[in-house]
Amino acid sequence: METASRRGGREARRSQRMAPKVDMLPTLKSGLPAVEPMSPEQVERIHQASMGILEEVGVVFRDPIALADWKRAGADVRDERVHLDRGLVMSLIGSIPSQITYHARNAEKNVELGGRNAIFVPMTGAPYMRDLEDERRAPTIADLGTFHKLAHMMPALHSSAHHIVEPMDIVVAHRHMHITYSSMRHSDKIFMGMTTSPKNAEDVLDMCAILFGADFLETHAVTTGNCNGNSPLVWDQVMLGAMRAFCRRNQPVLCSPFVLGGANTPASTAAAVAQLNAEALSALAYTQVVRKGCPAIYGHYLSTVSMQSGAPMAGTPEISLMNFMIGQMARHYNVPWRTSNLLGGSKVFDAQAGYESAMTMMAVLLSGANYIWHSAGWNEAGMHCSIAKFLVDSEVCAMGYRMAEGIKWDDFDEALQAVRDVGPGGHYLGHPHTQANFQNAFFIPKLFDNNSIEQWKADGSKDIKDRALKQAKKLLSEYEEPKLDPAKDEELRAFIDRRSREIPAVDALNDEF
Amino acid sequence: METASRRGGREARRSQRMAPKVDMLPTLKSGLPAVEPMSPEQVERIHQASMGILEEVGVVFRDPIALADWKRAGADVRDERVHLDRGLVMSLIGSIPSQITYHARNAEKNVELGGRNAIFVPMTGAPYMRDLEDERRAPTIADLGTFHKLAHMMPALHSSAHHIVEPMDIVVAHRHMHITYSSMRHSDKIFMGMTTSPKNAEDVLDMCAILFGADFLETHAVTTGNCNGNSPLVWDQVMLGAMRAFCRRNQPVLCSPFVLGGANTPASTAAAVAQLNAEALSALAYTQVVRKGCPAIYGHYLSTVSMQSGAPMAGTPEISLMNFMIGQMARHYNVPWRTSNLLGGSKVFDAQAGYESAMTMMAVLLSGANYIWHSAGWNEAGMHCSIAKFLVDSEVCAMGYRMAEGIKWDDFDEALQAVRDVGPGGHYLGHPHTQANFQNAFFIPKLFDNNSIEQWKADGSKDIKDRALKQAKKLLSEYEEPKLDPAKDEELRAFIDRRSREIPAVDALNDEF
Repeated sequence: METASRRGGREARRSQRMAPKVDMLPTLKSGLPAVEPMSPEQVERIHQASMGILEEVGVVFRDPIALADWKRAGADVRDERVHLDRGLVMSLIGSIPSQITYHARNAEKNVELGGRNAIFVPMTGAPYMRDLEDERRAPTIADLGTFHKLAHMMPALHSSAHHIVEPMDIVVAHRHMHITYSSMRHSDKIFMGMTTSPKNAEDVLDMCAILFGADFLETHAVTTGNCNGNSPLVWDQVMLGAMRAFCRRNQPVLCSPFVLGGANTPASTAAAVAQLNAEALSALAYTQVVRKGCPAIYGHYLSTVSMQSGAPMAGTPEISLMNFMIGQMARHYNVPWRTSNLLGGSKVFDAQAGYESAMTMMAVLLSGANYIWHSAGWNEAGMHCSIAKFLVDSEVCAMGYRMAEGIKWDDFDEALQAVRDVGPGGHYLGHPHTQANFQNAFFIPKLFDNNSIEQWKADGSKDIKDRALKQAKKLLSEYEEPKLDPAKDEELRAFIDRRSREIPAVDALNDEF
Repeated sequence: METASRRGGREARRSQRMAPKVDMLPTLKSGLPAVEPMSPEQVERIHQASMGILEEVGVVFRDPIALADWKRAGADVRDERVHLDRGLVMSLIGSIPSQITYHARNAEKNVELGGRNAIFVPMTGAPYMRDLEDERRAPTIADLGTFHKLAHMMPALHSSAHHIVEPMDIVVAHRHMHITYSSMRHSDKIFMGMTTSPKNAEDVLDMCAILFGADFLETHAVTTGNCNGNSPLVWDQVMLGAMRAFCRRNQPVLCSPFVLGGANTPASTAAAVAQLNAEALSALAYTQVVRKGCPAIYGHYLSTVSMQSGAPMAGTPEISLMNFMIGQMARHYNVPWRTSNLLGGSKVFDAQAGYESAMTMMAVLLSGANYIWHSAGWNEAGMHCSIAKFLVDSEVCAMGYRMAEGIKWDDFDEALQAVRDVGPGGHYLGHPHTQANFQNAFFIPKLFDNNSIEQWKADGSKDIKDRALKQAKKLLSEYEEPKLDPAKDEELRAFIDRRSREIPAVDALNDEF
């Protein structure tokens, strides 16, 4: 009996060791001061420049409803161009909540946003992927499911996002619903909501209402929409319509000027930030015209452009500087803000991708960003999502998370006692304080090989891409679906069926407004 | 005639375009605020802890001369253990210059150190290399020359350092002179001085005296020695003897505790920094016992140890945090400080190496470090120097340099005028401000590929390692030696010949004290 019991215990422990670890790191509470390269006078200089742009140059809202809204709100509207008085802008953005609590279907995975609170969200929007064999190919809805499973299992990712990769096997007009269902089904973390058209946004929000209840949405943030601006100084009808859909349901929307520094901004980091700031503020203000007090996030996609290729670059010094500056501006307005993380421009998962991604992440973490998007998988300037990079980026986010938490002082006196105990020329590995604290004191990445070259050769001379793909296969074999409530699952599937019958299955965006 | 003249002009321009660009970036003057995670109270807490260690635990100086020096200086010496009163330590380090001007044999390449002034120095000490074909092998003196040539040609590197790789074909006892000669000959930038023994240090300084003149050395810094501590809390005879040699000639020495966090420090970042700080201060103080007012640099080699392999890791969150903290301590004492940059633990030049290196560099730049060593080539935890990585790291240093310079405001008003000129929905590429400023406004790395995948395939589907090796071959084919003064060259060679006859050609360190 004793032997059997022992075996049972051993089996149980073994099975526990083998079980996939799906713990999520809680909301990152940054313990490091942000890098602030601008003096208060320089922050004011950017602010004044942005106010001047809003008042004198104006912003084009290519959307009759938005133009009518702005007129009612008291703006100076001339054709499509809205001239925004600084008093109006500042009064409007004053009602944006400075903090957001995001609710996941598993309440243990709720997260906070704003102030010192930050979350990591995977990349989205890749038309290609590099798969489990590192082959570059078009993704399917099954591949999207794979990424949602991995997002679910990576501790440092706080969201399963939405279309990490584009499911090319689903007709474009129905894609938004299948993407949303995949996010909801494969992970119980928060997720993003598609904004490919106003009507698509409504479908996504209807699905959220099924999952969480329509009343719950009215008072709780459960998803995030993104609306890209057309820099310089234009917001289009599709984005504004989707923005209104999110605002009306009280769901947060990222107001994201799409900046390619030097192409659609001046060739100056300071002036590019002044323009971006004006653009972001104009959309943030509009969210409050739509619904006063609804949550909204200061967004941007930020790159500089290679003169050689015209392509966006990643990890450049100016992107880092602009992140620092935008952080200062968003804090100046007391609005949560979004940036992009771990971006790579390489065609393969080589050292270039590593340098670019890590430079971006370090700047992003030290800029004090809140909604840290594109945190895993992004390479080839967003043209593909790599499974190998997705895993490594996620581990690098966990490293960044640990750094951003700051210094631990709780065991300082005990650790100093160890210095006295060990003394000159001694060893710490055997000291009780070391044994009690080693595991937590120093981060040990799993996918980074620090063995000797002899051991590394014995392990098959694998580079980090090989190790990451092996780990991805292992994780996927261990994945356990966090089951949806059967009644809600049924209702979601019925909704998709009904809407799929209603929406013509054309391979183009559903642009019925 | 006109045609010929035109052809001549065209030839001249072509030859100018083809000529290697060997401009060096001037001393980096950091325009970014350093990341300071400790409050003034926490800085004081580390200081008090270090003072307690120096007074109560003491530091072992395994060297009769140093022990005698300390007794004369008024320290409480018990056997080999020196207990240092805080008053004595603070009084001694008070005479360390806060700024150093380094003199190169080409005065245009002089650099400044201390305060906001920082320089990039290549890696040193690799027993293996990855060569122009990426083969891992033992290096020769010719290979060291190759690295010195590349260090000479990389704009962001301010020094040719010393033994970037170990020249294994030279007997150990004579190596220090051949290394020094290689640094002096292949580059006209500043260089480092070997400290493998006190006598070797004297040889190096004698060679410096030949190159610059003995009197010049008395009043000008021309090289840098490094003395590693044996953490915890031990300085050995070889290092202390070499340190004295440098101090007596008024040449700066790096006082570098060799920290493997968790192995030879407590498992606590804060306590590890308290110990490291005590160690560094004990050696810094000793430099002033040897020669009051001689330049000295707060050093360290800093890593955390993998529990799996016992190997030092790179780019970990705790290394970043400790760099931020050490920067605060060094500024607290108003002493220039050194750190290590762009460290990789990978066996190959893969994404791992890229992530690790870039995370390290970003933390280092934002910690406000002055002497930024190991800035190019380091991989496999320092076991090899990679030519490919040497080039890419150098370019990444140039990117980091640009970031650390901070924001440019000089053309802000002109750039804002461009926003007004271009207006909503316009393009900037054709605007005169863009054309005048694009090249300088946004950094465009040469070794990072941002082309489309189609163009990248047409270019041979090369990863960054391949591109860097190709570029290295091109640079080496264009290298032009910055000739030494023939008389000095003759004298240096004669010195090496004479000393080579005097020093037994054994394959072990020259440890004649």
